[in-house]
Amino acid sequence: MLVVMKANATPEMIEAVVKSVTEMGLSAHPIPGANRTAIGVTGNKTQVHSDRLRVMPGVQDLVHVTEPYKLVGLDFHPERSVIDVAGVKFGGEELVFIGGPCSVEDRDTTLAIARKVRDAGGEVFRGGAFKPRTSPYSFQGYGEDALKTLDAVRSETGLRIVTEAIDPENLRLVAKYADMIQIGARNMQNFSLLREAGKSGKPVLLKRGMSSTVEEFLMAAEYVLSEGNPNVILCERGVRTFAAHTRNTMDLSAIPFVRSKSHLPIIADPSHGTGVRDMVAPLARAAIAVGADGLIVETHINPDQALSDGFQTVGSDVFAQIVDEASRIAPVVGRTVASRKSE
Amino acid sequence: MLVVMKANATPEMIEAVVKSVTEMGLSAHPIPGANRTAIGVTGNKTQVHSDRLRVMPGVQDLVHVTEPYKLVGLDFHPERSVIDVAGVKFGGEELVFIGGPCSVEDRDTTLAIARKVRDAGGEVFRGGAFKPRTSPYSFQGYGEDALKTLDAVRSETGLRIVTEAIDPENLRLVAKYADMIQIGARNMQNFSLLREAGKSGKPVLLKRGMSSTVEEFLMAAEYVLSEGNPNVILCERGVRTFAAHTRNTMDLSAIPFVRSKSHLPIIADPSHGTGVRDMVAPLARAAIAVGADGLIVETHINPDQALSDGFQTVGSDVFAQIVDEASRIAPVVGRTVASRKSE
Amino acid sequence: MLVVMKANATPEMIEAVVKSVTEMGLSAHPIPGANRTAIGVTGNKTQVHSDRLRVMPGVQDLVHVTEPYKLVGLDFHPERSVIDVAGVKFGGEELVFIGGPCSVEDRDTTLAIARKVRDAGGEVFRGGAFKPRTSPYSFQGYGEDALKTLDAVRSETGLRIVTEAIDPENLRLVAKYADMIQIGARNMQNFSLLREAGKSGKPVLLKRGMSSTVEEFLMAAEYVLSEGNPNVILCERGVRTFAAHTRNTMDLSAIPFVRSKSHLPIIADPSHGTGVRDMVAPLARAAIAVGADGLIVETHINPDQALSDGFQTVGSDVFAQIVDEASRIAPVVGRTVASRKSE
Amino acid sequence: MLVVMKANATPEMIEAVVKSVTEMGLSAHPIPGANRTAIGVTGNKTQVHSDRLRVMPGVQDLVHVTEPYKLVGLDFHPERSVIDVAGVKFGGEELVFIGGPCSVEDRDTTLAIARKVRDAGGEVFRGGAFKPRTSPYSFQGYGEDALKTLDAVRSETGLRIVTEAIDPENLRLVAKYADMIQIGARNMQNFSLLREAGKSGKPVLLKRGMSSTVEEFLMAAEYVLSEGNPNVILCERGVRTFAAHTRNTMDLSAIPFVRSKSHLPIIADPSHGTGVRDMVAPLARAAIAVGADGLIVETHINPDQALSDGFQTVGSDVFAQIVDEASRIAPVVGRTVASRKSE
Repeated sequence: MLVVMKANATPEMIEAVVKSVTEMGLSAHPIPGANRTAIGVTGNKTQVHSDRLRVMPGVQDLVHVTEPYKLVGLDFHPERSVIDVAGVKFGGEELVFIGGPCSVEDRDTTLAIARKVRDAGGEVFRGGAFKPRTSPYSFQGYGEDALKTLDAVRSETGLRIVTEAIDPENLRLVAKYADMIQIGARNMQNFSLLREAGKSGKPVLLKRGMSSTVEEFLMAAEYVLSEGNPNVILCERGVRTFAAHTRNTMDLSAIPFVRSKSHLPIIADPSHGTGVRDMVAPLARAAIAVGADGLIVETHINPDQALSDGFQTVGSDVFAQIVDEASRIAPVVGRTVASRKSE
Repeated sequence: MLVVMKANATPEMIEAVVKSVTEMGLSAHPIPGANRTAIGVTGNKTQVHSDRLRVMPGVQDLVHVTEPYKLVGLDFHPERSVIDVAGVKFGGEELVFIGGPCSVEDRDTTLAIARKVRDAGGEVFRGGAFKPRTSPYSFQGYGEDALKTLDAVRSETGLRIVTEAIDPENLRLVAKYADMIQIGARNMQNFSLLREAGKSGKPVLLKRGMSSTVEEFLMAAEYVLSEGNPNVILCERGVRTFAAHTRNTMDLSAIPFVRSKSHLPIIADPSHGTGVRDMVAPLARAAIAVGADGLIVETHINPDQALSDGFQTVGSDVFAQIVDEASRIAPVVGRTVASRKSE
Repeated sequence: MLVVMKANATPEMIEAVVKSVTEMGLSAHPIPGANRTAIGVTGNKTQVHSDRLRVMPGVQDLVHVTEPYKLVGLDFHPERSVIDVAGVKFGGEELVFIGGPCSVEDRDTTLAIARKVRDAGGEVFRGGAFKPRTSPYSFQGYGEDALKTLDAVRSETGLRIVTEAIDPENLRLVAKYADMIQIGARNMQNFSLLREAGKSGKPVLLKRGMSSTVEEFLMAAEYVLSEGNPNVILCERGVRTFAAHTRNTMDLSAIPFVRSKSHLPIIADPSHGTGVRDMVAPLARAAIAVGADGLIVETHINPDQALSDGFQTVGSDVFAQIVDEASRIAPVVGRTVASRKSE
Repeated sequence: MLVVMKANATPEMIEAVVKSVTEMGLSAHPIPGANRTAIGVTGNKTQVHSDRLRVMPGVQDLVHVTEPYKLVGLDFHPERSVIDVAGVKFGGEELVFIGGPCSVEDRDTTLAIARKVRDAGGEVFRGGAFKPRTSPYSFQGYGEDALKTLDAVRSETGLRIVTEAIDPENLRLVAKYADMIQIGARNMQNFSLLREAGKSGKPVLLKRGMSSTVEEFLMAAEYVLSEGNPNVILCERGVRTFAAHTRNTMDLSAIPFVRSKSHLPIIADPSHGTGVRDMVAPLARAAIAVGADGLIVETHINPDQALSDGFQTVGSDVFAQIVDEASRIAPVVGRTVASRKSE
């Protein structure tokens, strides 16, 4: 349920509604807007006795929400969220580009890749320290050493850092190093991890599960927000279908659909979305054209030598091409690219 | 198998190879190229005794093709095909836009829609006369009367006509009226219909089946080409997956993948690809950005009054917006839009 | 809509209702039951003005059907249908077994397979004369010669014959030879073929399309029934999913679900359902246990030498084992196996 | 890689091979068999220099394993595993039945359900204490209180207890109470949880992920075994497809396929596999007929009052019917049902 306050409601009136909601055994989430404040009410498994709220001073309306998600929905929060990742803004007018290798490599290679990402117009660096791998015998990442390498990348390039956490304890470690914590597709419904990410307060990059519906995807984000952390960026990365010419099938329609239901930013991952190096650039263009807020792309100075996922990793030149093409499509969708502004 | 002739091979040499192939009980398909001719050999279920061909005058090389498709493949025909539909070219530098209602309506409404399509920059008109419907009790189209209405649209607007044929006998009727014959998703593996379309010689718009792999899609086109008709335009229109927020899931990766395997043009149908009116324009942009040769869009002057599929039909204003946005994305993918050239 | 007549309604009363329905521009389908007759009304796209019918003599009730299918539904026809295929009954207490090669082979081999099918307890022989193949270059069946071979099988073994028709014209030929006409998965929504099958009056074995919902499956059967042919036997043969260890994924839940919605018999095809020889017997057992009315199995005296689909064809010994195991599971599901009765 | 020792190899010879493998930086897993011992070698990302092993005393053969899984595979362990869950054996001749509510309820209700499970022939009790739910606002289980209720069920009925763990820390708590730890479908690739389950040494009931291939499923089990815990029971519980008449599509072919690749027992969950109460019994029969080692079924004394998942929960009478039908199908697949032996 959503309690919509009048435009002239005072802070005291808002506080009084929050108190009443809490006394009912429910949770209140004040959501300040440009003109008025709304108060999201969660925890109501059954019908809330709302008469008590309706007559309180400053209350304009009660909105019963029919979608299963609340905090992530446009009903609760009609204005688009802009998520700040250490100064880089996702969800605003500017498109954001994230690049880097699948796994963090040795320090020199990683730094060389990062400089190329920055020079091309990327603002965030990606690289796995802890890799969830199908086989226990596959390379699982360099662990905390890799986190230290990422720290060095930030210091030397100014790029922000996103890297994956794989369990609640691990998330606490990752949160010390990263500007944004990635929750991977396989963990999209790892609810303990989602709650821990919520508690961390850090920006979260949440990837869609490989067979999740959009509703389940938004509900996973709801777990993070319900812990008091509004900083979630969604990521479409392809779903599993019968189609065999790609590793996954990118469901680009999810991007405008999510934007019609939720205020959260959503970016696209054409690397995992296709699993084929030559298709990354075309699908990157398509994702921008469909309305994504940015891209996350696996890139390497020498893709054939990548520690993992080389088959879907593009060279630094293709990463630069992707940013360039995105900047040319951007005006058609009312967007800009920061690094191209001076041009 | 492919017999590659030398650049200076004479017509007599080519003819002699064709004759030898025929004598072996196989079919020969000469494919003239800019520099040299290649001769596709089909019908070889088992190993061809190719020594006899290798030593003939003018023969440069024999290429054994490993893909199951032959005539549609780039090995047989390395140059991109440009298909001429009554003067409108698909597969060249210019993007082509097809618009019109799901079903052909009464004459006045149909003409009014067609004028809007033309004015927006569309060059081909779509509209179903014979509709394959899930229920025998649903509206099945106005039949031959609708074909006559399409004829009137052509006369009065200059638009070319594409409409669907649903069985071999019906195709012979449709071929009298249409400039291009559509084979729908449900009939993608209706092999009798594909062969009849091949025999007609008419341009064929072949839609991907809703659970077909790209390989099966190309093999369906191979049926048409194997009957001597090279004029096939492919169309990605979404596949069936678990995702419930759209009617189908558009597999835009199929477009660059098809282009990497086949010389045939491929367009996109964001109307059936999404099944949701508000998503047609975003996915149309994405399809152009990913590299489609054109679009086919369900449009109506009054979508809410459409005889069928109104929920996925866009108004004439949105159709014009789609063409406009495509023309702005076109340069990024090395394309142009004819109607915008003079601007 | 369904008009339920009183138990004591006279033939004249029934006739009068049929006449009224017809005058409304609709179709009436009298469905005689054990105690009373119901009259199915189809063709009503919009609300029927039913008051006129409700007050007619002998009318007990009007039932508005909410399922999109009518003639195939239990509302219209609450008793289970038993379909007679030249004396072999599908849908009754006895399970029926269909066996034979993918494609009809030479006469001697085909007869040898057929004798093994009969000796094992099979009552119907399958074998393709016209094969819909993904590639135009694959073996497409021996055509009418194969139909003549099937005729010989019937004469010499007493087995009934089911074989596939691939287009309306072809169906007229097949109907001359076959006791039951198969419509394959690829043609499940080939509506012209379905209508022609309906007009033929012959029993139809309708296979589920590889990505069709159960509702679409039942609507395809509705096409046949709406032409006046009630003799449809459904067949679950696996659907297309991401799973790669089998050619298709058998959706055995479709069998009890269909039986809860429709009176038509439904059998299972574990050969196409798995595409793997070693899995045919286990899934055949499962299909009987789940409630199928019978099985259709690809079998050969020498599976490794089969003209097509050898990889999913079982030997005659395994066919006999399948019938034997089915006869042991039959009592658990209230069924019997004719050939085992005397044991 | 697998080192196959001679039948007469001494323990000292085996020990020497293990030592050599360890010195190479790899892990050795001796697998005693009826006639001879094999030694599984894992950790070899690249080619092992195996010449050194081949010439050691007692070594008969080196087998290079091509499947990505090792410890779970039949190459490493050709005899079927029988997993002992506090005295109840999974994977032997006897079928095992697990029953209980979705969520553990209050103590009286839970005990009443348990007695019905035991009386019907069930040997293991299921019930969720910690429920992974799509929505953060849905009931998440009674937590440790529920674990105590399960403890009481064991004391009072003699049933063994299986219940789900949802993160590594939580698993350590669950392991104190449960005889077998369930890892749910959403966590099938929660690798931290799998490793923790491996370290616990407790029997693990591992459910197939809703879009996982069988290979990924076996690789998930490999994570548990690679931590030294061989006690894994697999569970097919349906996969996600386009089919809408059930919550999931049971992929029963996975059962014989897993049995052809792995020595681990595999049971079926027709409750989640269908999500529809009326389909649980038919699919339970099918699962036994296809070769499952047992069943896990959601059952309640009053399904309509269940705390969660009531729509797919069967009454105690249907649970008893399921065990009864399974016992009648059992002989066809060479199985027995313990509770029916005395009959």
